[in-house]
Amino acid sequence: MTIASPDISLPRGVNDFLPELAAKIGYIEARIRRVFELWGFRRIITPKLEYEDVMSIGMGEELKGKTYRFDDRQTGRLLAFPPDITPQVARIVATRLKGSPLPHRISYSGRVLRQTAMQAGQSREIFQSGVELIGLDSPEADAEMVAMAVEVMQNLALGDFKIDLGQVEFCRSILTASGLSGQPLRDLRVALSHKDSSAVARITAERGVSAQSTKEIMLLPRLFGGREVVNEAEQIVTTARARTALLNLKQTLDILDIHGISDYLTIDLGETRGLDYHTGITFEGFVSGIGEPVCSGGRYDQLMGRYGFPAPATGFTFNILNLLQALERRPELEASTGSDFLLFNSCEDRQEVLEVARILRSHGYRTARDIIRRSMEDSLQYARRMNIRWMLLIEENSSGIYRIFRVRDGHQFTVSRQTLEDDELLAFIENSQ
Amino acid sequence: MTIASPDISLPRGVNDFLPELAAKIGYIEARIRRVFELWGFRRIITPKLEYEDVMSIGMGEELKGKTYRFDDRQTGRLLAFPPDITPQVARIVATRLKGSPLPHRISYSGRVLRQTAMQAGQSREIFQSGVELIGLDSPEADAEMVAMAVEVMQNLALGDFKIDLGQVEFCRSILTASGLSGQPLRDLRVALSHKDSSAVARITAERGVSAQSTKEIMLLPRLFGGREVVNEAEQIVTTARARTALLNLKQTLDILDIHGISDYLTIDLGETRGLDYHTGITFEGFVSGIGEPVCSGGRYDQLMGRYGFPAPATGFTFNILNLLQALERRPELEASTGSDFLLFNSCEDRQEVLEVARILRSHGYRTARDIIRRSMEDSLQYARRMNIRWMLLIEENSSGIYRIFRVRDGHQFTVSRQTLEDDELLAFIENSQ
Repeated sequence: MTIASPDISLPRGVNDFLPELAAKIGYIEARIRRVFELWGFRRIITPKLEYEDVMSIGMGEELKGKTYRFDDRQTGRLLAFPPDITPQVARIVATRLKGSPLPHRISYSGRVLRQTAMQAGQSREIFQSGVELIGLDSPEADAEMVAMAVEVMQNLALGDFKIDLGQVEFCRSILTASGLSGQPLRDLRVALSHKDSSAVARITAERGVSAQSTKEIMLLPRLFGGREVVNEAEQIVTTARARTALLNLKQTLDILDIHGISDYLTIDLGETRGLDYHTGITFEGFVSGIGEPVCSGGRYDQLMGRYGFPAPATGFTFNILNLLQALERRPELEASTGSDFLLFNSCEDRQEVLEVARILRSHGYRTARDIIRRSMEDSLQYARRMNIRWMLLIEENSSGIYRIFRVRDGHQFTVSRQTLEDDELLAFIENSQ
Repeated sequence: MTIASPDISLPRGVNDFLPELAAKIGYIEARIRRVFELWGFRRIITPKLEYEDVMSIGMGEELKGKTYRFDDRQTGRLLAFPPDITPQVARIVATRLKGSPLPHRISYSGRVLRQTAMQAGQSREIFQSGVELIGLDSPEADAEMVAMAVEVMQNLALGDFKIDLGQVEFCRSILTASGLSGQPLRDLRVALSHKDSSAVARITAERGVSAQSTKEIMLLPRLFGGREVVNEAEQIVTTARARTALLNLKQTLDILDIHGISDYLTIDLGETRGLDYHTGITFEGFVSGIGEPVCSGGRYDQLMGRYGFPAPATGFTFNILNLLQALERRPELEASTGSDFLLFNSCEDRQEVLEVARILRSHGYRTARDIIRRSMEDSLQYARRMNIRWMLLIEENSSGIYRIFRVRDGHQFTVSRQTLEDDELLAFIENSQ
């Protein structure tokens, strides 16, 4: 029989995660959740539907343009699938938690959806695990974010990684001093983000930016490196605003020093990424060999006020799929996704196989039954394909003695019903040669 | 300053879950995941976007009507937010896993979205954790589903619960024998689902259904109860199809007997719920005092074929929010959501407080720092509101001796730096009176 194959493809930009990758995602999320918990953050769960205008309050133009939206059949109002979780947390704090004492230490783990351009091949579905620390304006709060990010990356044993630290107020003060606005300012920011000095020079010249301001702007792309960058920046600043921003950066760096993580840090004062949204320290985490940042975040002291609850705030989020890419290079994590036992029953009676299954599970063994009627060899083949470690045979007249095959190499040994019920079962099985 | 409050409401039918409830949801999901794992099921993660026509292949009319859909900006094709995960699993098995040996034991945990009527007050967002067992047509596979559902409910200590077991082929064979179709058949099914005997009698009379068929149909609402229901049903069946269905039910009940869970079962042969979709054993789980089922599922042997991969299959899913309702009646689960320690630092120096935090976390204590400058009394107040267990004070000239307040009652004791670093810290703190 030929079956007409329906078109059952998946839209571009989203993915199915089969057991191996799903297990790794679970592993990453659990590790992150544990660190967040140990730092006193409490998880909340935000909904997958919001009013579009409520979400928009807390999003920059870029994110608004990437939002999936549609009319609510119930109310006619526009609904959105959240492209970011931070505005949801802001809404919740401003409504449900407004009577609680500050600060709030809140964590979340979930997926957001973002429109992407056809050709970009980017992910439309982003797995995020992050935190928000709301109610603190101190550099200690900024340092806490960076320290937690580092602790997670150490914990995941990601190998070489680093944190790029910025201070958008410094950058903003220098751009403001240029007097530019509108399209020229946007062009300048694009040029800066590419560290494209000739474009920066051209734009400032064309627009008649003052010599002093041009000098400061031209320096921005070079303010990148170790702690010496702060000293270089101090040489050029002329405004109180820039000076305050640098002081804030220095205080944060001092606390990160006490946290003992300065070796992971690089400073990038030309970073313009967070200018629409952030208001102080920002950072991104990079793992060697992975192009996209695995985490990003920073201070956003204006957002809460837009939801009617003015409060300083900072936060950051991990991009789980970027972390997954980094972890895919660690094959030793593969082993744990298969089951432990496949039970092969050649008796008519099912009492015994169900009891053996129950006993193995009570010891914590992942135990599947091979309910299909097939030969022992076929079952062993199935176990091998499914990455199952052992196959246990329940045979007629076994008198409570079962054969076990180690699936990897076919090595065979026996175990008694007595031993199965014993607490030392694991040691017995692992050591059977 | 008065701040104009923006409208930041949440659409009806979705919810924010604050830490206490989010922790309970996490607890429920983790328990379910563990049982699924122990039975040899492997988790996959399905995307939040699908082509609408691909999803539709695997959904009944009712679910299609509840799907959130919109045009894909990339392709112009209609996209859907999955209202059910089973069709996604079917698609994945028919594509990515078609070369793998059967059976597939697959689990998932995620959220689906469904349109609801305005007045219904129902949830638009449904939290599901479920399994699919694909490739087995044996009653043992059906029994495995029911046994796992029972194990989870025992595991969650839900108190009184039961599983309603049906066999849609039995019901279908009797309805087919009536000769009814279209609207009269739909009316009959509605009447049966309400166990409304007078409506059933009226419909069969109006439509001239034969005496034998009417007798069988009239019996359906009464075929509800213990195992004796199967015997009653055997008295009335006339077709081979109905007989086969009853035999299948009996075989499944026999295996459930071996599983030792017969006491949880009731049989309902008049159940019409799964007629559009299911093809054999179906079941729903109910917890005493909760109106909606906490789990539901059954056999669906036709679905895989629609995705070009014909295979028998069965599965079921938990409704996490309905389980949450059942667990909300267990206050002893509340305690674990707060942090363990709040660190109150009255020194200028931060070295010591950061070290103490690191030590406590290394022991597994959830430890938050009170970075806000406020009085000790205010911090204690904060700790009380946030459900934090202890507050530890780092004071000038403490010489490595720290005061600890038990937040609940203000009881005060001291701990040395030495003890903090000791493995017996927990016992020391728990026993300090």
